[in-house]
Amino acid sequence: MFAKKFIPFFTFLLIYASAFAADPLPSWNDTPVKQAIIEYMERINTIGDDYIPVQERIATFDNDGTLWAEQPVVQLMYMSYAVKNMAKDNVSLLKDPAYKAVADGDLNAIMADREGVMRVIAAVFAGVSADSFEKDVKAFFDTARYPKPALALYGIRYQPQMELLAYLHKNGFKVYICSGGDVDFMRVISLKYYGIPEEHVIGARMKTEFDPVSNKIMRKAQFLTSNDESEKAVNIEAEIGRPPVFAVGNVRSGGDIYMLRYSQSSKYPNMQIMVDHDDAEREFAYTDNVSLPWASKYGFRVVSMKKDWKRIFTGETK
Amino acid sequence: MFAKKFIPFFTFLLIYASAFAADPLPSWNDTPVKQAIIEYMERINTIGDDYIPVQERIATFDNDGTLWAEQPVVQLMYMSYAVKNMAKDNVSLLKDPAYKAVADGDLNAIMADREGVMRVIAAVFAGVSADSFEKDVKAFFDTARYPKPALALYGIRYQPQMELLAYLHKNGFKVYICSGGDVDFMRVISLKYYGIPEEHVIGARMKTEFDPVSNKIMRKAQFLTSNDESEKAVNIEAEIGRPPVFAVGNVRSGGDIYMLRYSQSSKYPNMQIMVDHDDAEREFAYTDNVSLPWASKYGFRVVSMKKDWKRIFTGETK
Repeated sequence: MFAKKFIPFFTFLLIYASAFAADPLPSWNDTPVKQAIIEYMERINTIGDDYIPVQERIATFDNDGTLWAEQPVVQLMYMSYAVKNMAKDNVSLLKDPAYKAVADGDLNAIMADREGVMRVIAAVFAGVSADSFEKDVKAFFDTARYPKPALALYGIRYQPQMELLAYLHKNGFKVYICSGGDVDFMRVISLKYYGIPEEHVIGARMKTEFDPVSNKIMRKAQFLTSNDESEKAVNIEAEIGRPPVFAVGNVRSGGDIYMLRYSQSSKYPNMQIMVDHDDAEREFAYTDNVSLPWASKYGFRVVSMKKDWKRIFTGETK
Repeated sequence: MFAKKFIPFFTFLLIYASAFAADPLPSWNDTPVKQAIIEYMERINTIGDDYIPVQERIATFDNDGTLWAEQPVVQLMYMSYAVKNMAKDNVSLLKDPAYKAVADGDLNAIMADREGVMRVIAAVFAGVSADSFEKDVKAFFDTARYPKPALALYGIRYQPQMELLAYLHKNGFKVYICSGGDVDFMRVISLKYYGIPEEHVIGARMKTEFDPVSNKIMRKAQFLTSNDESEKAVNIEAEIGRPPVFAVGNVRSGGDIYMLRYSQSSKYPNMQIMVDHDDAEREFAYTDNVSLPWASKYGFRVVSMKKDWKRIFTGETK
């Protein structure tokens, strides 16, 4: 009698409550990927074999094409900005085809003259202290505008990913960026743009030297790591000591497949997400012959920007 | 009338309360260093110009000679253990003088044959996966005994430093180890011994490679960084992105002076501590012609183990 009378009432309460529980991912369509993310989170929060202790909740995200737009790559925009600034003091600089190509953001010319571009990279990213590099990057972010969508850079972040970052943070995750961008370049905006502190940014690195008299770290013209492809796995192990339980990358170059694969060596329940740029109308459609086959072979979840995301960009919400 | 009657009562209450407030550093004598540490913590917790936001509370500690004993260095004990294990399967190994020197922990012989010892290091620290290296190091820590004091390794931690770590953690600090020890070696014990998670360990590193098929990180026979001297500053900037506001090292080789100096480039109130091994009776008295002059030149606080510490070792408290 008791059961007959009261269980329907409690069932109703449960349904009522869950219907009004805040949706953690409102810009995601109700497709299998979103459901899988939410189920994963419920699973690792349930006391039992699949529970993950808070200190082991580590997530890694690629940046370009995963957290914000990458056509054009923001760091190339910065290089163009820096070269144009240099040219103000030294007009003849742009007679050098490599400098000209970078200033114009001419990707074909850049790709054609690798050696020349390395010279420009050395001039832009090295020969300065870490502090003055940071100041210069800050000045760039304060004024730069993206071409498409035509927004300040704060606006080209992907709104569904901002919700995913917040969902992970809320559930006790330490979220790291692990990207081929220069580590000190990304650190300038990681907290403001993503809520990710500087010490959770893993990136490409130039050699640096410490001068105890001036008490400065000086950037040198030598690459230590490009933090791409298998280096992502290597550098995550080096800095964090173990694989992430949650790893997110995107299709284009195959640069993220090793990070996602490495995540599968975690002893805890783990999840890998590969963002597929398949939305030519709202963003871009890429061709990638590596990432999707790996996703299928190893069971990474593929996010279709077209089908799984209600909305793409945050827009200028600051 | 009110003031006359009641202020003494409140003053009495304040004195009474502070007298019974738990001492955060009970194994430290009431000398100027202890007072300076407590004053620093009060200063950065007081809302105003010197307040440090929680996310900027970053501390770095050397390990050998700063957090635990270093005569002998624990990692050399591990090398001896590993070589003896190898020799079980291959008795002729100890006919090689370099292997013999490491197995015997013969420091003079080791120092005399640098090339030979590098061969042994390569054999002990490389050619294995990060996982099996970790397992082997764990097995070592489970059984190893220190010669003087004759204790399990858990017992050779410095009790006053355990209190300092707890005091920093309680005040919202992210505490990192930054040591010349192998990073994956120290990670095996950092949480259990110090309450420091794996991702907060910065150390010496061998080159590693990722194999996506076996999904393993393999250790290679090539040094990437010894994380000593100025490399400590360089690697802190590379991994944390900014200087620590609190840095602790010890005299002996001058290996920590650059880390302490770099800490002084923080824009926040900062403090540097140099532990002086001057207690031949309870531990060791070292001679160091570099660290103390730097301490005096740059204003690092010097901790005399003899005068400032009531007690040296934790003993086997597990």
